[in-house]
Amino acid sequence: MSLTTDDPLAAAREILAAQAFNTVVGAELTDFGDGRAELVLDIADHHRQQYGVVHGGVLAFLADNVVTFAAGSVLGTGVITAGVDVSYLRAARAGSLRAVGSVARHTARHAVCTAEIWLEATDSDPELCAIAQGTIFATSRT
Amino acid sequence: MSLTTDDPLAAAREILAAQAFNTVVGAELTDFGDGRAELVLDIADHHRQQYGVVHGGVLAFLADNVVTFAAGSVLGTGVITAGVDVSYLRAARAGSLRAVGSVARHTARHAVCTAEIWLEATDSDPELCAIAQGTIFATSRT
Amino acid sequence: MSLTTDDPLAAAREILAAQAFNTVVGAELTDFGDGRAELVLDIADHHRQQYGVVHGGVLAFLADNVVTFAAGSVLGTGVITAGVDVSYLRAARAGSLRAVGSVARHTARHAVCTAEIWLEATDSDPELCAIAQGTIFATSRT
Amino acid sequence: MSLTTDDPLAAAREILAAQAFNTVVGAELTDFGDGRAELVLDIADHHRQQYGVVHGGVLAFLADNVVTFAAGSVLGTGVITAGVDVSYLRAARAGSLRAVGSVARHTARHAVCTAEIWLEATDSDPELCAIAQGTIFATSRT
Repeated sequence: MSLTTDDPLAAAREILAAQAFNTVVGAELTDFGDGRAELVLDIADHHRQQYGVVHGGVLAFLADNVVTFAAGSVLGTGVITAGVDVSYLRAARAGSLRAVGSVARHTARHAVCTAEIWLEATDSDPELCAIAQGTIFATSRT
Repeated sequence: MSLTTDDPLAAAREILAAQAFNTVVGAELTDFGDGRAELVLDIADHHRQQYGVVHGGVLAFLADNVVTFAAGSVLGTGVITAGVDVSYLRAARAGSLRAVGSVARHTARHAVCTAEIWLEATDSDPELCAIAQGTIFATSRT
Repeated sequence: MSLTTDDPLAAAREILAAQAFNTVVGAELTDFGDGRAELVLDIADHHRQQYGVVHGGVLAFLADNVVTFAAGSVLGTGVITAGVDVSYLRAARAGSLRAVGSVARHTARHAVCTAEIWLEATDSDPELCAIAQGTIFATSRT
Repeated sequence: MSLTTDDPLAAAREILAAQAFNTVVGAELTDFGDGRAELVLDIADHHRQQYGVVHGGVLAFLADNVVTFAAGSVLGTGVITAGVDVSYLRAARAGSLRAVGSVARHTARHAVCTAEIWLEATDSDPELCAIAQGTIFATSRT
């Protein structure tokens, strides 16, 4: 895809806006650059599973996406994710989810990233809801 | 949640129908029972990412959900997924995705499951798009 | 390292013999080629942990090594393993462990492999003790 | 197994000493308690693979063991590891490996832990060689 800006965060937001699946999920990119990315999602009814808490698939989507953006911040826009390992720690019921991705190490061709997904609610301290690891390749695609 | 049927597949479909997040994703449960579950998703535009292929988060959702249903078929409806490891093998562009989950082993308290996600298109043989492993606990919740 | 044979299984056995760590573990390569590899380990006292069963680290070693050999059978001898996800299913007490690695998919630059580790004892049917997934890169190293 | 001490670190060292497999690997437990554990291994020739660097199986052993000890520090001595996901970041050639395990979250019945394995060499800053996640169950076994 072609981008209309050279500003890294603005360009990354254009990429996220081009993800049709995110238009139904609704995450926003709040940080991007230097091996780090952050997605924020306001929990809404359509994110829930049968017990009323956020679906594991939503957490897995955030984990997958935030490790990929974190990797993209060092590898460039042409990246493909080889895999992601998600461990669920706590049910998330209401508030916002903040997914923070960080590059643990990268070469020119790949990056290994970690992610933490925090629940932020108005009436309590942030709580860690999920952790993840992901491996991302650089491609020649731009 | 309370179910209106004793038929395992019908009951599992009620659970899937109660997942608000799946109403925006749109997977259907086509098999359930004896340590096995199968979800089918017709690929639509809102499943895509910036390159036009199915978003990794959609594959991760299918993997998470199908290993959990497979586990539920032997552990009962009260289950919670501890984690899922997804490896992406191929981009999926058009057709249907068939996610097949199987219990590799289970005790009374937990199950370890594997999943395969196949792309089925009219003009080609099925292709394996992702594989996954998941660990699921039984809870006292019913 | 330089190999003295063109026979794939014999060459792979030379590589295993060059792994100093395996001289203390003691696995043997019993199959290699066409996206598949198999390691067999006779369980001995020095493989155990505090409860007398095979240490998880031994199973993780077998998983790591067998997915890497399986990948090497399609990528060539220059490979580096990006990661491995191991799920432990059953304690292994006595007999032999057979680790079977298979390529799920590969490109010229990488492979994703799965592994199963089976316990084979004289007095019972084989039992699945662990499953694993691994991602392996091709390098220019030969 | 029965322990001869109530001191947590000393008791955990007795457990490590009872792991026959570690007598051939040679890790030492340098910290234990409050959701944290640390293993140190002086790299020796028998830890290497065919390229002369530490075998991935050694790193996987350290990851498996250190997340299990970290979990044991909050769950008690009766624990069983469900699985471990290891990502390899850098080859380790010489010096010491320091594996640090931490509990990300735990309940009475299980813990999810992360691990980092650092290479410490005399002539350079510590380098992160591997990261891992693990899920560990409490058992009634003591």
